[in-house]
Amino acid sequence: MSEFSHWNEKGRPKMVDISQKDSTKRTAIAQSSILLKQELYDAIQNAQIKKGDPLQVAQIAGIMAAKKTSDIIPMCHPIQITGVDFHFEYQERNNGFELIIQAEVSCKGNTGVEMEALTAVTAAALTFYDMCKAVDKSMVIKETFLLRKTGGKNGDYVAQK
Amino acid sequence: MSEFSHWNEKGRPKMVDISQKDSTKRTAIAQSSILLKQELYDAIQNAQIKKGDPLQVAQIAGIMAAKKTSDIIPMCHPIQITGVDFHFEYQERNNGFELIIQAEVSCKGNTGVEMEALTAVTAAALTFYDMCKAVDKSMVIKETFLLRKTGGKNGDYVAQK
Amino acid sequence: MSEFSHWNEKGRPKMVDISQKDSTKRTAIAQSSILLKQELYDAIQNAQIKKGDPLQVAQIAGIMAAKKTSDIIPMCHPIQITGVDFHFEYQERNNGFELIIQAEVSCKGNTGVEMEALTAVTAAALTFYDMCKAVDKSMVIKETFLLRKTGGKNGDYVAQK
Amino acid sequence: MSEFSHWNEKGRPKMVDISQKDSTKRTAIAQSSILLKQELYDAIQNAQIKKGDPLQVAQIAGIMAAKKTSDIIPMCHPIQITGVDFHFEYQERNNGFELIIQAEVSCKGNTGVEMEALTAVTAAALTFYDMCKAVDKSMVIKETFLLRKTGGKNGDYVAQK
Amino acid sequence: MSEFSHWNEKGRPKMVDISQKDSTKRTAIAQSSILLKQELYDAIQNAQIKKGDPLQVAQIAGIMAAKKTSDIIPMCHPIQITGVDFHFEYQERNNGFELIIQAEVSCKGNTGVEMEALTAVTAAALTFYDMCKAVDKSMVIKETFLLRKTGGKNGDYVAQK
Amino acid sequence: MSEFSHWNEKGRPKMVDISQKDSTKRTAIAQSSILLKQELYDAIQNAQIKKGDPLQVAQIAGIMAAKKTSDIIPMCHPIQITGVDFHFEYQERNNGFELIIQAEVSCKGNTGVEMEALTAVTAAALTFYDMCKAVDKSMVIKETFLLRKTGGKNGDYVAQK
Repeated sequence: MSEFSHWNEKGRPKMVDISQKDSTKRTAIAQSSILLKQELYDAIQNAQIKKGDPLQVAQIAGIMAAKKTSDIIPMCHPIQITGVDFHFEYQERNNGFELIIQAEVSCKGNTGVEMEALTAVTAAALTFYDMCKAVDKSMVIKETFLLRKTGGKNGDYVAQK
Repeated sequence: MSEFSHWNEKGRPKMVDISQKDSTKRTAIAQSSILLKQELYDAIQNAQIKKGDPLQVAQIAGIMAAKKTSDIIPMCHPIQITGVDFHFEYQERNNGFELIIQAEVSCKGNTGVEMEALTAVTAAALTFYDMCKAVDKSMVIKETFLLRKTGGKNGDYVAQK
Repeated sequence: MSEFSHWNEKGRPKMVDISQKDSTKRTAIAQSSILLKQELYDAIQNAQIKKGDPLQVAQIAGIMAAKKTSDIIPMCHPIQITGVDFHFEYQERNNGFELIIQAEVSCKGNTGVEMEALTAVTAAALTFYDMCKAVDKSMVIKETFLLRKTGGKNGDYVAQK
Repeated sequence: MSEFSHWNEKGRPKMVDISQKDSTKRTAIAQSSILLKQELYDAIQNAQIKKGDPLQVAQIAGIMAAKKTSDIIPMCHPIQITGVDFHFEYQERNNGFELIIQAEVSCKGNTGVEMEALTAVTAAALTFYDMCKAVDKSMVIKETFLLRKTGGKNGDYVAQK
Repeated sequence: MSEFSHWNEKGRPKMVDISQKDSTKRTAIAQSSILLKQELYDAIQNAQIKKGDPLQVAQIAGIMAAKKTSDIIPMCHPIQITGVDFHFEYQERNNGFELIIQAEVSCKGNTGVEMEALTAVTAAALTFYDMCKAVDKSMVIKETFLLRKTGGKNGDYVAQK
Repeated sequence: MSEFSHWNEKGRPKMVDISQKDSTKRTAIAQSSILLKQELYDAIQNAQIKKGDPLQVAQIAGIMAAKKTSDIIPMCHPIQITGVDFHFEYQERNNGFELIIQAEVSCKGNTGVEMEALTAVTAAALTFYDMCKAVDKSMVIKETFLLRKTGGKNGDYVAQK
């Protein structure tokens, strides 16, 4: 098992020096999801026609949040991300629907973009909640995790589920 | 069931006018959690003595994120929050531990602080992940939801679980 | 004619003290516009069906920029805006179309929201340009101005055109 | 005519992946302007001697805004700009003066700095308006456009006027 | 001697709840200073005529930093400051000059603006350093402290020197 | 003596073009300090056991502020810093203790990180003040200066004391 890397010898958190790491292409895909009751799902489908689609706002919020990651997560390095895209999918569940949210982030740099992808999906999930909370405050954001990463010295990672 | 409030008549998202709403004391408590394997939990307990405690960093990140909520969630009103505190608790699970994260946010204003509390717990969970991901990338952030809110015209809300 | 208010006695810019001004409801409407060639207008109309609508992104960007006004304009006071909405309209012109962009911002505070409304429309115009510049870099943002304001000691203002 | 590049296959805006584009020196010059009545122009000239020069504040605001571009324009990539400078010129008009505002931005990166230059001139124009609006609220920001760009695969661009 | 207020019962920092405190007019004045060698002072005096005045940039940076205080200092409450002004004075010293920097910040709110005034003067001092460091990197920022505060339950405070 | 580099030919501040400078590894160490009375020092030592350590919060604030440097100092280039760490030391003085604060920042880029290191130590000092000001408002931040820098065309620099 690897070592914690974010602490200095006094037990205080530091930003790890990555200036010796190689600058390579890196990608990360993270996933979150949110549970919707049937009534809310129906309301969204109806609203989407005459009003707007909360996924539009969630996607934009997620992309903008990916750019703010190092401002939100204290020990994250500032990274010039080179691309962000989202994939949304409603899946039927017993009591309604689960909206699956995936974000893929890429960069060419000295460190990975896992935190950027995780920040992107959580901001998108929170924004979806915000857009719909006037209708239902009881939505629950379900599992949020790193699905896959590529690039970097430690090689690729794929979540085992 | 209430109406969506965040859309204008053309189907584009707007920031709802809250200037007529009363300025009252409001609070919100949100919860998130994160699953840890036994090995990671042990590593954190050991590290905490000679190194630092990831909960310290997570709490500070969560408080600072609460102040950035209206910068992250597009339709959120800027709010002068008057207080934020966190409560953490490790609970044993089959394959290790679940870290329960709760944030309570208060304000005196025209709109609630649900999104601030939800943003605070997710930023804390993401920061905890970041502080520990060198040891284990497979941590999963579990359910994130609004636990309770007080104040405002629509009255109090308590999550039913 | 009124006096410049943003300068101290040494000729350096200051943030004027507004703590004695009354806290009242204030609104401001600003307008900008952007000229589009017929080909770009047609491309947008086509894209809108199978792709997305640049006005969605422009509106969200404008609302978020309104919240950043005091971070962009050095002498602006931080203001808790209580609402923002946009109105877009394509008008035919000789060589294509002019997209009229109007933003209305409201607050309950000690100073007006003119700069917030102006910042909102310019951010929306710039975002529209960004979303379409792969098709045509020669778009021109036309007149940007304060259309109307209400509230405050100096009374209402309406642009004379 | 090129294609829209900012939309994914579902019609939602994405941040285009530029990790394969070459990192080269790039520059962009944008222009905006603002119309001043004779009285305001005279007041500024007088104030400049015993007070301060609004162009100083406008230039600093423009440079700082160029650094915030990817935080204001949703689909803009974060870019490490390497330089920003401004050129201002008052030109006589029938009913007063037109202040011409030009900003030149440079970077060494995978994508152009058109949006950075356009954001810089609009922030400068808005700041000039803010510094003078106590004297005259009826100022109009005139045409804002990309004057010239160099570098990148698609070659140089010069506005045709 | 008062108690530390920024810690919760678990020894983690919290943002203290100030929703019960009265909203009153509050002001704070902070001071910093910076030592200049005779050569640098002369160079600034000469440059000021044909070039610009570093105090202009320092003052603007200080005002903008005051607005960012709660984004920089983790446990600071977001405050709507209502005014900021600066006072600069060069005083002769043995080996050159000392630039005295004072900032006065005001607000109408539930908590004081000491940190805002201290952040303003340090940002101004750092900016002055940045503007002049090409000429002399050995400048030293001298004592930074709270000079005076008014308003709030605990009464006024004046530094004893 | 070198020339001022931050001014254009009109006497207005510009962001100097560094696109021709070499991208090399650069480091900078800055120092600040803060004077504590014996009573405050004792209170911190006691609090540290059952409460928390203000140095934890100061270090995190300093690291986050280093990332915000180009947002605080107007003419600073945006830089992707690759590492930040802090060193704290309490030294006995006549009337109590002096807390020495040092921050080391590294990057791989076209310009140095002096301002990042100076911003980091001042933010840490201000945060320490904020965490302790409920106990003693009369703390004084002492000398803040650049201790050392390496890398870049002009060679290394070491403060002479």
